[in-house]
Amino acid sequence: MAGTRFAYVRNFELPDPLLPDTYIVLRIDGHSFHRQFSEEHELAKPNDVRALKLMDEAASSVMEMFTDITLAFGESDEFSFLFKKSTNVYNRRNAKILTTVVSQFTSSYVFNWAKHFPGVSLKYPPSFDGRIVLYPTEKVVRDYFSWRQADTHINNLYNTAFWALVQEGKQTTTQAHEALRGTNSAQKNQLLFERFGINYNDVPERMRKGSVIVREEARDLPLSVASFVDGCGGDKVVKEEDTLEVKDKGKGRKRASTRVTVLHCDLIRDEFWDERPYILSE
Amino acid sequence: MAGTRFAYVRNFELPDPLLPDTYIVLRIDGHSFHRQFSEEHELAKPNDVRALKLMDEAASSVMEMFTDITLAFGESDEFSFLFKKSTNVYNRRNAKILTTVVSQFTSSYVFNWAKHFPGVSLKYPPSFDGRIVLYPTEKVVRDYFSWRQADTHINNLYNTAFWALVQEGKQTTTQAHEALRGTNSAQKNQLLFERFGINYNDVPERMRKGSVIVREEARDLPLSVASFVDGCGGDKVVKEEDTLEVKDKGKGRKRASTRVTVLHCDLIRDEFWDERPYILSE
Amino acid sequence: MAGTRFAYVRNFELPDPLLPDTYIVLRIDGHSFHRQFSEEHELAKPNDVRALKLMDEAASSVMEMFTDITLAFGESDEFSFLFKKSTNVYNRRNAKILTTVVSQFTSSYVFNWAKHFPGVSLKYPPSFDGRIVLYPTEKVVRDYFSWRQADTHINNLYNTAFWALVQEGKQTTTQAHEALRGTNSAQKNQLLFERFGINYNDVPERMRKGSVIVREEARDLPLSVASFVDGCGGDKVVKEEDTLEVKDKGKGRKRASTRVTVLHCDLIRDEFWDERPYILSE
Amino acid sequence: MAGTRFAYVRNFELPDPLLPDTYIVLRIDGHSFHRQFSEEHELAKPNDVRALKLMDEAASSVMEMFTDITLAFGESDEFSFLFKKSTNVYNRRNAKILTTVVSQFTSSYVFNWAKHFPGVSLKYPPSFDGRIVLYPTEKVVRDYFSWRQADTHINNLYNTAFWALVQEGKQTTTQAHEALRGTNSAQKNQLLFERFGINYNDVPERMRKGSVIVREEARDLPLSVASFVDGCGGDKVVKEEDTLEVKDKGKGRKRASTRVTVLHCDLIRDEFWDERPYILSE
Repeated sequence: MAGTRFAYVRNFELPDPLLPDTYIVLRIDGHSFHRQFSEEHELAKPNDVRALKLMDEAASSVMEMFTDITLAFGESDEFSFLFKKSTNVYNRRNAKILTTVVSQFTSSYVFNWAKHFPGVSLKYPPSFDGRIVLYPTEKVVRDYFSWRQADTHINNLYNTAFWALVQEGKQTTTQAHEALRGTNSAQKNQLLFERFGINYNDVPERMRKGSVIVREEARDLPLSVASFVDGCGGDKVVKEEDTLEVKDKGKGRKRASTRVTVLHCDLIRDEFWDERPYILSE
Repeated sequence: MAGTRFAYVRNFELPDPLLPDTYIVLRIDGHSFHRQFSEEHELAKPNDVRALKLMDEAASSVMEMFTDITLAFGESDEFSFLFKKSTNVYNRRNAKILTTVVSQFTSSYVFNWAKHFPGVSLKYPPSFDGRIVLYPTEKVVRDYFSWRQADTHINNLYNTAFWALVQEGKQTTTQAHEALRGTNSAQKNQLLFERFGINYNDVPERMRKGSVIVREEARDLPLSVASFVDGCGGDKVVKEEDTLEVKDKGKGRKRASTRVTVLHCDLIRDEFWDERPYILSE
Repeated sequence: MAGTRFAYVRNFELPDPLLPDTYIVLRIDGHSFHRQFSEEHELAKPNDVRALKLMDEAASSVMEMFTDITLAFGESDEFSFLFKKSTNVYNRRNAKILTTVVSQFTSSYVFNWAKHFPGVSLKYPPSFDGRIVLYPTEKVVRDYFSWRQADTHINNLYNTAFWALVQEGKQTTTQAHEALRGTNSAQKNQLLFERFGINYNDVPERMRKGSVIVREEARDLPLSVASFVDGCGGDKVVKEEDTLEVKDKGKGRKRASTRVTVLHCDLIRDEFWDERPYILSE
Repeated sequence: MAGTRFAYVRNFELPDPLLPDTYIVLRIDGHSFHRQFSEEHELAKPNDVRALKLMDEAASSVMEMFTDITLAFGESDEFSFLFKKSTNVYNRRNAKILTTVVSQFTSSYVFNWAKHFPGVSLKYPPSFDGRIVLYPTEKVVRDYFSWRQADTHINNLYNTAFWALVQEGKQTTTQAHEALRGTNSAQKNQLLFERFGINYNDVPERMRKGSVIVREEARDLPLSVASFVDGCGGDKVVKEEDTLEVKDKGKGRKRASTRVTVLHCDLIRDEFWDERPYILSE
């Protein structure tokens, strides 16, 4: 048969299994979002809530597809996903897992654009890159997510001050960068408060903490919806306008009463992890 | 600073460079297209030209983005891309190249859906997976693409006969599979001709050969358009209805007069390669 | 300069770092020892103590060279080494670590042949292969060494029975294999005792448990020698005839009072690990 | 069975196949030979012929073991081996090939020490490290070996001048390094000739060219010996004192009349390769 003579080329496809029993973290980053994409689509500065919610939705669709993802964290144009260490999805093949997640995220992002940006045309197809990193211990997994959330804080404080100087203070971007050079967190907080009357702690948690996506037990939440929840703790308030229509495709057994939920809360301290032991242990 | 304490987690990000001076082939496959996607969107059988053209457009957008891709070949829900062996794109980092291509392809697919499927809603975000395979010699690169095109022929002949039996012959799918079991090419050709009056050679080359995307010199073709060309040879006929609006984003120098062009022609024989030495050599 | 023009070939040397903070296990196996080497050198069956002690000495020389190895286990013609998970030896380069250990082991084996085989010529240079396997958790490291020691037990019981049948029972090797086919441990024990008067538990622990090499605190042992100790527990008895001349090349600080010590004891149960927490933790 | 419960640890042994149809170059380097080994064994400077011949013998033993190695090149304490690109030895498993070669080389080195260093004790077991590098084309393979031979020339010219200054010129090593700093080849040649009466071209080719090991057809050479040949060309002179006792373990068919032969000749120019097409092509 015609195909047979050439089929030997498959021998060049080498296996790429990921080490078993090790946490898989997969991080996605927007391609040229900062420079190009945000300008062409006139995204609000320092944060565009529509864009952040679209990222959350794309990430949630990934979590719906891969029930072995126990946690996701997003900020700006990036999102990180944690697979439980025992996962055997796609036999732990690196490229298969990596590309399927990146593709699903991208697809969902474009697919849901119109929902989050009503009246705004998507001018060209945006793309993301991704990488997989293995982490062998609980400690380093927690440190990874702490690293990203600390980054969120640092970037958001800077950007909040920067755009206040530009938008309110009528400075050029060059002047604003100059004004912030070498300042520490306390100084940026002070500048925001004294010059612009902004108490940084009043900035929404979504901006200050990023998006933390988990699988929560349904309990007292309405069963048909997944929900964005501001903050995280006992007194969750479901905001109707944040409702995402996602369905739990879990096999219905143990996960029957969980749903993908977006929080904006601290994950550096122990509390978050203590309340959700399922994220790191089996 | 808060971020510093955790930044050590970056040490777990290991390098993944691809061997230099070696051809990079990247193949993308649709995720559950055969089983689910084509049914939910009622794609025509055995081939849906709209879907094939959308694939071509997504592949063309990848070639626009990566000027070091010299050839692409697609059939059904898969596409293969060939990077020239000297490419240093993204410093030949495996995951970076792989995910950016898969993401761009996916994004373009969803972005251009409405253009190719007017009046048909995309029901959910489709995804693709991808892999990179290295090929060290010209011979094995040619054999790779021959393998895919031979596969196109085999699959399309089977599917043409199968769906003729089902659609014209009113057989069940089980009966149709049974009828074709063990038949060779000649027998399928005969069946098509004798029972359904179909001369397989009259099936459009797009179906029989797949899509071959190259960078052609512009010459006598209108400069503002890239074109789908049926067959491949000296007497190309640009079909207006196949026009794709793609722009060459090459830096304008050497590539100023080339454009991404979709052909449906044989690439197993020498002729195709002899006419396009740039594909394999530098 | 002449070298410059060709130096680009170094770009093909790709990095191969091992995942940080993960246990490194390196296992060495003799090349054709069972079939060829043991016959040509007329090694005693089922075990040749000279050969086992030579393996122990080669392994000890590796542990002298790499102070980040905390444990080694050997049986027959194989040896496994455990590097502590935080080791940064050779920047965790896979090939560098792997080949240096295998080379040192081989070199020491040939170098010390005459000492352990007085009057027996080494007929040709023996070789070993090796591999590195990463293990992310304490549990799986322990299970690895348990796997090897269980293997030692299974093989030694079989071989003891097999060679009793051949040497004492005057059976052919084919008959002996046939006699043992399908027997379980209890049946082999019974066969040894009833037919040959051998109580398997009286077989030296070296044969039944393999060699466990650790870094013991010097305490009451003579400082100038490392020692082979039968069994492992509180009441160690240093056997003079087992003395190995190995010197601790540790930098003299923390390790000043430890020495490489060969034990023949159980490492499947907790006791071994509970007494030596330094093996797995930092 | 006891072993079964733990056998899952084998799942952590990941495959490591080398890309097919690609040249495999394996380079071995002595561990601390320059600093420590050569001093402790009082090797002659700038070159010790005994040590070089021992390296050649160890390399020859590797070529005897692996008939798919078509070329080796050595200088000082390093040796490079070229496997033909179609080799399927050990199913192209990286660690298996790498460690077996390094181990065999090491073993042969220690095993044959006494033969080449009569009356000189080996003071401790020397070790080597190794790495595998893949090269996809003939050109880059040739450039690799040219790189190593150019390196031989550069190092040997420097060392010849350096040790002349120290041994004949009674300079300290610091003074000698200082005297040579920034000099080019012509200046070093001049220095050797004018101050020490040494015509560098009279230095034996072994020193200036390194060792080139090939499989030569036996032709007019005595069948029972492999030979060291000075230079390389039509008028080879077999030097009896250089005879190596190596046996061709090839299956006797095609290779029946070839033998492993050590040359000291140029391999940068085309002549060497033109005369031996079998090295690079199949």
